[in-house]
Amino acid sequence: MFKQITIIGFGLIGSSVARAVIEHKQAESIVCVDTDEEICNKVLAMGLADDATTDPSLGVAGSDLVILCCPVGAMEHVASRIAGHLENGCIVSDVGSVKGSVIKVLQPRLPSYVHLVPAHPISGAEKTGPESGFAELFNNRWCILTPLPHTELSALEKVTKLWESFGSMVEIMDPEHHDLILGLTSHLPHLIAYSVVGTATNLEDDIKSEVIKFSAGGFRDFTRLASSDPVMWRDVFLNNKDAVLEVLQRFTEDLTSLQKAIRKGDGEYLYQQFSDTREIRPAIVDAGQADYLDPES
Amino acid sequence: MFKQITIIGFGLIGSSVARAVIEHKQAESIVCVDTDEEICNKVLAMGLADDATTDPSLGVAGSDLVILCCPVGAMEHVASRIAGHLENGCIVSDVGSVKGSVIKVLQPRLPSYVHLVPAHPISGAEKTGPESGFAELFNNRWCILTPLPHTELSALEKVTKLWESFGSMVEIMDPEHHDLILGLTSHLPHLIAYSVVGTATNLEDDIKSEVIKFSAGGFRDFTRLASSDPVMWRDVFLNNKDAVLEVLQRFTEDLTSLQKAIRKGDGEYLYQQFSDTREIRPAIVDAGQADYLDPES
Repeated sequence: MFKQITIIGFGLIGSSVARAVIEHKQAESIVCVDTDEEICNKVLAMGLADDATTDPSLGVAGSDLVILCCPVGAMEHVASRIAGHLENGCIVSDVGSVKGSVIKVLQPRLPSYVHLVPAHPISGAEKTGPESGFAELFNNRWCILTPLPHTELSALEKVTKLWESFGSMVEIMDPEHHDLILGLTSHLPHLIAYSVVGTATNLEDDIKSEVIKFSAGGFRDFTRLASSDPVMWRDVFLNNKDAVLEVLQRFTEDLTSLQKAIRKGDGEYLYQQFSDTREIRPAIVDAGQADYLDPES
Repeated sequence: MFKQITIIGFGLIGSSVARAVIEHKQAESIVCVDTDEEICNKVLAMGLADDATTDPSLGVAGSDLVILCCPVGAMEHVASRIAGHLENGCIVSDVGSVKGSVIKVLQPRLPSYVHLVPAHPISGAEKTGPESGFAELFNNRWCILTPLPHTELSALEKVTKLWESFGSMVEIMDPEHHDLILGLTSHLPHLIAYSVVGTATNLEDDIKSEVIKFSAGGFRDFTRLASSDPVMWRDVFLNNKDAVLEVLQRFTEDLTSLQKAIRKGDGEYLYQQFSDTREIRPAIVDAGQADYLDPES
């Protein structure tokens, strides 16, 4: 479907995109761009790309699709480096977990003769690096596209078909709306998990070893979220600040109410809250949404 | 090993204890006590007990082991009901998630000629009711015993052997210490999960439906915790108030630091925190602690 796809940033997601492109024969060739020369060599050795370079401006030459799989915080720099070297009519996409701020840095830097189609595949795993990727990572998962008002329909369709070929279900959304929804379903849970695990990390050593030993009570789920890539998540929180602070505020209010009820011994309030939250679960099981961080290690 | 075991409260845990007792031939007979007559009939029909009654004072007659599997908040009432009807030398145990407050209500109510051996098997599932139980629930999981200073060693040994026959790893612990550790590894994560899911439940309907749709980003893990039994968890928080409020306070401080860093755009702080929390995960994977709420539905 594509002549040449350049993937910039060959971590878990980038390498999984490459594997899926190969598996589903979506491009004649793949170019790897990564700041780390060792990763470039590894990617070539693994046969995940036909060419590899640490220079993004060289890497995008001749490509009709460029996918930015680098951390959200690196997108501005990458956009500036590739802008003058993109082919006429080239599609530029990404896989960033935040869409508003990514569009804000990409759009003004890219020339008007390329098509920007921002994307966010809702899938991941706790492992990082090109050796952790796998072609099935996007299968049966959502991929949200947040096109701009002037995005050409043909470019949107091509990106849609690419993700559908990976087995993803594609949804079109407004970027601000995406950032609010994901702020709640993904960014807030990660922030809280980082915080709970951080609390445990700061404990005295003897208690910490027992927390590890008896971690099955819910804490273990949190450590899984809290072992995600720190650079990626730093960038998510810096770039989705408004939505995250907004949902965090709502969460803190709700937690304070529960805290107050515990302090006052208000069993009726606790029972009511714990009953209400139960109702959302069957809908989620019905929706068949597998865990973000599958496969479990 | 036991002549007759009475299980009071035939929900997920109680019925799983019964199944494990049968599977591993740990008693000649089992008596079911449950306030719900329908459950009593169901339990008899399923062959999980030889006798069943809604009256705890009748149910404990002739038993050499009584296990309280009712919610923590019901223990005081049950203890008062059974106290005068327990056999001389009978062992009384429980499966409550909180140990300090359970001991506080059980100990003064039980006659001195019975042996109190409080227990907490760290295992569960999101389903409730006697039909959801299974004999393997305790296999390869920890069971924490919190004996009192005067608990007879022979009684402690018998309860230890019972749980070991179920495949559990038994650990002896001080009740207050148990409540602090579990406050962090189990009670706090559940409280937070209830809170996050509560926040989502209070959203406008259109956003809520999208939260369900795109729940794979971490939120889904939280809904699993937040669909646990509301009565059980109400009682946990009411009865482990001090430890929960203590770890909640530490958590809130840590979360506030992260919030402040996001607001100020302090990427260095975020990166450092997210890197530190990563270190605890491999230790937990090594410890082989399966999820509390397995099996996934």
